[in-house]
Amino acid sequence: MGAKSAAGSTGRIVIIGGVAAGMSAASRAKRFDPGAEVVVFERGDYISYGACGLPYVIGGEVEDFDDLIARTPERMRGQGIGIRTGHEVTGVDAKAGTVTVLDRAAGRTTTEPFDRLLIATGVRAVRPDWAHTTLSGVHVLRDIPDGQAIEASLQGKDGKAPKRACIVGGGYIGLEMAEALHARGLNVVLLEKGPEVAGRMLDTQLQRRVRAELEAKGVDVRCGTAVEGLTGEGHVTGVQTSKGLVRADLVIVAVGVKPNTELVKAAGARLGKTGAVAVNIRQETSVPGIYAAGDNSESLHRVTRRKVHIPLGLTANRMGRVAGVNMAGGDATFPGIVGTAIFKVFELGAARTGLTQAEADALGLKAVSVDVDSTDHAGYYGDSRPIHVRLTAEVGSGRLLGVQLVSPRHISVKRVDVVAALLHRRSTVQHLFDTDLAYAPPFSGVWDVLLVAADKLNRKIKTA
Amino acid sequence: MGAKSAAGSTGRIVIIGGVAAGMSAASRAKRFDPGAEVVVFERGDYISYGACGLPYVIGGEVEDFDDLIARTPERMRGQGIGIRTGHEVTGVDAKAGTVTVLDRAAGRTTTEPFDRLLIATGVRAVRPDWAHTTLSGVHVLRDIPDGQAIEASLQGKDGKAPKRACIVGGGYIGLEMAEALHARGLNVVLLEKGPEVAGRMLDTQLQRRVRAELEAKGVDVRCGTAVEGLTGEGHVTGVQTSKGLVRADLVIVAVGVKPNTELVKAAGARLGKTGAVAVNIRQETSVPGIYAAGDNSESLHRVTRRKVHIPLGLTANRMGRVAGVNMAGGDATFPGIVGTAIFKVFELGAARTGLTQAEADALGLKAVSVDVDSTDHAGYYGDSRPIHVRLTAEVGSGRLLGVQLVSPRHISVKRVDVVAALLHRRSTVQHLFDTDLAYAPPFSGVWDVLLVAADKLNRKIKTA
Repeated sequence: MGAKSAAGSTGRIVIIGGVAAGMSAASRAKRFDPGAEVVVFERGDYISYGACGLPYVIGGEVEDFDDLIARTPERMRGQGIGIRTGHEVTGVDAKAGTVTVLDRAAGRTTTEPFDRLLIATGVRAVRPDWAHTTLSGVHVLRDIPDGQAIEASLQGKDGKAPKRACIVGGGYIGLEMAEALHARGLNVVLLEKGPEVAGRMLDTQLQRRVRAELEAKGVDVRCGTAVEGLTGEGHVTGVQTSKGLVRADLVIVAVGVKPNTELVKAAGARLGKTGAVAVNIRQETSVPGIYAAGDNSESLHRVTRRKVHIPLGLTANRMGRVAGVNMAGGDATFPGIVGTAIFKVFELGAARTGLTQAEADALGLKAVSVDVDSTDHAGYYGDSRPIHVRLTAEVGSGRLLGVQLVSPRHISVKRVDVVAALLHRRSTVQHLFDTDLAYAPPFSGVWDVLLVAADKLNRKIKTA
Repeated sequence: MGAKSAAGSTGRIVIIGGVAAGMSAASRAKRFDPGAEVVVFERGDYISYGACGLPYVIGGEVEDFDDLIARTPERMRGQGIGIRTGHEVTGVDAKAGTVTVLDRAAGRTTTEPFDRLLIATGVRAVRPDWAHTTLSGVHVLRDIPDGQAIEASLQGKDGKAPKRACIVGGGYIGLEMAEALHARGLNVVLLEKGPEVAGRMLDTQLQRRVRAELEAKGVDVRCGTAVEGLTGEGHVTGVQTSKGLVRADLVIVAVGVKPNTELVKAAGARLGKTGAVAVNIRQETSVPGIYAAGDNSESLHRVTRRKVHIPLGLTANRMGRVAGVNMAGGDATFPGIVGTAIFKVFELGAARTGLTQAEADALGLKAVSVDVDSTDHAGYYGDSRPIHVRLTAEVGSGRLLGVQLVSPRHISVKRVDVVAALLHRRSTVQHLFDTDLAYAPPFSGVWDVLLVAADKLNRKIKTA
């Protein structure tokens, strides 16, 4: 590790990656130790943007990609943080305490010293072999340039304006893009290799509701369909699948992400079993003084007490804050996650936290679930809408394990947060049932659907 | 106490009052001990209705008063529960184990034995001296007949159809009726004696938002205005106030409620300091074998560890269940409340749980609050709306004390439940901040507004 620089009490803090984790870390480090020198190297041209908003720009809910940008380089520089966009870190020498940096515009490489290093390089979209293609009209969606490329395709800048979209993958991105492209007037086919969409997120009962919503809105969903290749010359014309050819002049490949760990490995730091970076609760890697945070890193799942790799925006921001404070000489810890996730597809909201029944089974837990179909507001109230809750607990202990919700009023599933809070505080089904939840007819039934589910699950646990 | 009847293992269970607590108790008792004889005496003609829905029937959000009825006498009888509507219990003899019952239609009084008794007599609307009037067009709103009487007035059945309504009292009922009568096309004046509306519910900062919403919708809100009397001959024509005469041909008196405790006193059971019935955690009064539950009873506030009287529908239902199980020979306990409440007035939702700053101050707690103005969904997302959060904690311990929210998308304030859950589990501001709340742009910012408030409050506590 390099000697402390004269610039500040904690010396020179170098951050690789300027999106969620990286920028949170930079801000926190500078706030904690205003004397520290903080420099951020970002390979791309944009920093500090909400990647989760990309499908909504394409769909038209958000006007412009620039609207996703939370903090501009100018503003960060005004806070005394060095921002170098277009600068790609290509190597790390942990012993020497230096990184090798390529100025992409100038094509020039320099060596930069650090006292503390944060590797916040995020994830990349997985591209199967068949998706390594020179055909235009084939996209992934991970960052703003990806979004801009899709927008350019939609406007016909790489050929004719497309009419038929094929989305490969039924996870969040695939689902959100199905809605976005449908909103842009395209015919949309969604291909999913597994038996249902939202496969990693929900149990089968709720996956089906998600698919039903897509189909009701006119999306052609084909599950159990594997992609074998693409057709076309110059521009894509179709997707070859295990069940025949799907004609398409726009293809979105959304089959997952994997952590960018090359620099972590170069630094000699350890990866976890998940394939993401192993960090301690202070976000430090196995190499002292080198930290990792954000989508490339593992986190502790507080329900299972296992390390998991669930890259999400809030987690990345939290990890970045913790790393920033610690790099600046403070002592912050990341308490872990409980596996909360939420998405909207057309009118339908879906959310989950903790474990699904399938996940609990896979971990060998003795879990039991109940399903409740009710209304989000008082049943007699004019605008009440259906809501489905699936609540899961451990037999014997009654420990709350998780909840899943779907509702055609999407924001009604934000109730998931109540269970997330209780999971953080290691609670039982009885604790949930005892909770004084807010009731008035325009908001819920007397017994909020979460309480109805807890009551039913309590009875089931006792007889299990 | 009377001898156990031959009818069942726990004998004869008599329940006075057939609305929320009474009917919950009846159902639970019968389910717990199918051999028990369960008889409910209800003074009125309706049982088991959601009184909280009354303003929405008048406003038109709910079609008919009958829609509020959850369980009919026929259905309850089908479960083997004796339902005697139109039967008023006029006396209790605890030693003899009997109640005196007046059959109101027949004008006949009988004596009925009980082994266990539940007094679930609820509350009555407070009528100040000036509201004891023979003028037509003057109403309170507590039960279905009250609602029907207001509906009759609105239809001109007691004179001409009214054009100008005056509501006295700016609590829930007053606010909800302001919206309902405005929806029916009346000019509405709302009078409040105190300095602001929603006085017992929110701190001043948020009270003002509620008043602003009323005023924006055209309700004439006059705070600091005391009522001195009514004017009119036959039908009401106006309300005389400390600030002059308010012309009105419909007057709703909504100045609070008080517990119906006459029968409790007759039974020799103790009242608490709040004036409501003192019960233990099994809902038993100071007289063994005599229980009380619902709006007439005190409950334990889990944040302050004090007994409070906060009559609300969910609490009444919970208390009734507990009393029912215990009367049938089981052992259930009521865990208490955390002071959660929620209401909607026009587009605005308002909610609170725990303590307000004013309440914490009054209790001598060293509390501190922060206010956050943010958006309910991601700021850049098309339909995001403002939300105001006021979060309160104890200095030193960092213990979470309460939260208040207002938002023009009313259901966004249902987030209050997250803090309610954490209050039940006695948590700190840090616990809230650490919670893995659900994020996607159509649901919240990356940092849900509750997390933003927790972060701000954490900093304020440290410097306090």
